[in-house]
Amino acid sequence: MAITKSTITIHMVSSLDGFIASKDGSISWMNSNDHYENGITLTEEDVRAFVDRIDCYVIGSHTYEHALELGWPYGDKPVIVLTSRNLESDRSQVEFYSGGLQELVRDKLESYQKIWVAGGSKIAGDFIRLQLADEIIISIMPVILGEGIPFFDQIGQEQLLHLENVTAYQDGMVELSYEVKRRQVTG
Amino acid sequence: MAITKSTITIHMVSSLDGFIASKDGSISWMNSNDHYENGITLTEEDVRAFVDRIDCYVIGSHTYEHALELGWPYGDKPVIVLTSRNLESDRSQVEFYSGGLQELVRDKLESYQKIWVAGGSKIAGDFIRLQLADEIIISIMPVILGEGIPFFDQIGQEQLLHLENVTAYQDGMVELSYEVKRRQVTG
Repeated sequence: MAITKSTITIHMVSSLDGFIASKDGSISWMNSNDHYENGITLTEEDVRAFVDRIDCYVIGSHTYEHALELGWPYGDKPVIVLTSRNLESDRSQVEFYSGGLQELVRDKLESYQKIWVAGGSKIAGDFIRLQLADEIIISIMPVILGEGIPFFDQIGQEQLLHLENVTAYQDGMVELSYEVKRRQVTG
Repeated sequence: MAITKSTITIHMVSSLDGFIASKDGSISWMNSNDHYENGITLTEEDVRAFVDRIDCYVIGSHTYEHALELGWPYGDKPVIVLTSRNLESDRSQVEFYSGGLQELVRDKLESYQKIWVAGGSKIAGDFIRLQLADEIIISIMPVILGEGIPFFDQIGQEQLLHLENVTAYQDGMVELSYEVKRRQVTG
């Protein structure tokens, strides 16, 4: 049996002060009017090629409900919604999951190669706390929101990272990619 | 009378999850063991040339006490310590100030050209909230601290920024420089 290594990436868009959603739930701040001269821009083809490589999305129920409301960004890729609520979907690609994260990774995610965890902050925090994430990508918008929902649920433990990549875009967004360093497991 | 425009820069070193100090007060995490291949390194001369251009530091009393304890990083430049506590110093360069920030800027800072606000988070938040800062520089270390003292005291209001510069260093630190956009003042 061929073993393909899964990669679990946590990605979120954040304000400089670390919020992923403003208090009133608005996401208009994600559209920046800034202009950074040295930044790059992506073509639609770049974005499509990138998204095509994602095999599976993992999201929380609030992110799921926002996606239903604001426009479904996940195409027809498998989407696992982590929730203990009793939700239903008429999309066959959507699966609701209420079990533990370790079991999720072992039983469901290992058949995928590129797994994208798209929020919210509690799920991101749980993945990091349990050392189940391989990579964290933060896209920082050029704005201070002042209040809102924080990117990082208090994780409560230190986690070393390795800077993998830095990309600045013409709209002033900066994308920081980090590898999550695994702790030494003894015994 | 020649009018020289002052520039007020807020600079702090932060973990990826937005903490400027770990809960136990340790700053060992600021020394990164990471290696980012595409990053640059600064020579001692680079650092010295940069620091030489700073005319005045503004810090809080905790930052002041840390500096006394851990090694004075401000050379013989003027240092204004914002505090309502009754502190004394045998350094003639140090001045304690307990008044309002707007008065500080008008009465004391306008005679300096390059003013460096080096923390902590309450002072940074106040400068931003009152639109007294021209620039924010965050140096993000490749670590999640999990808990600690946040960079941004809840500012409570939105503030647009303009990305000015992004620099990645060989130790995995990323420095983001932003101009603080002034709100339109009407009336």
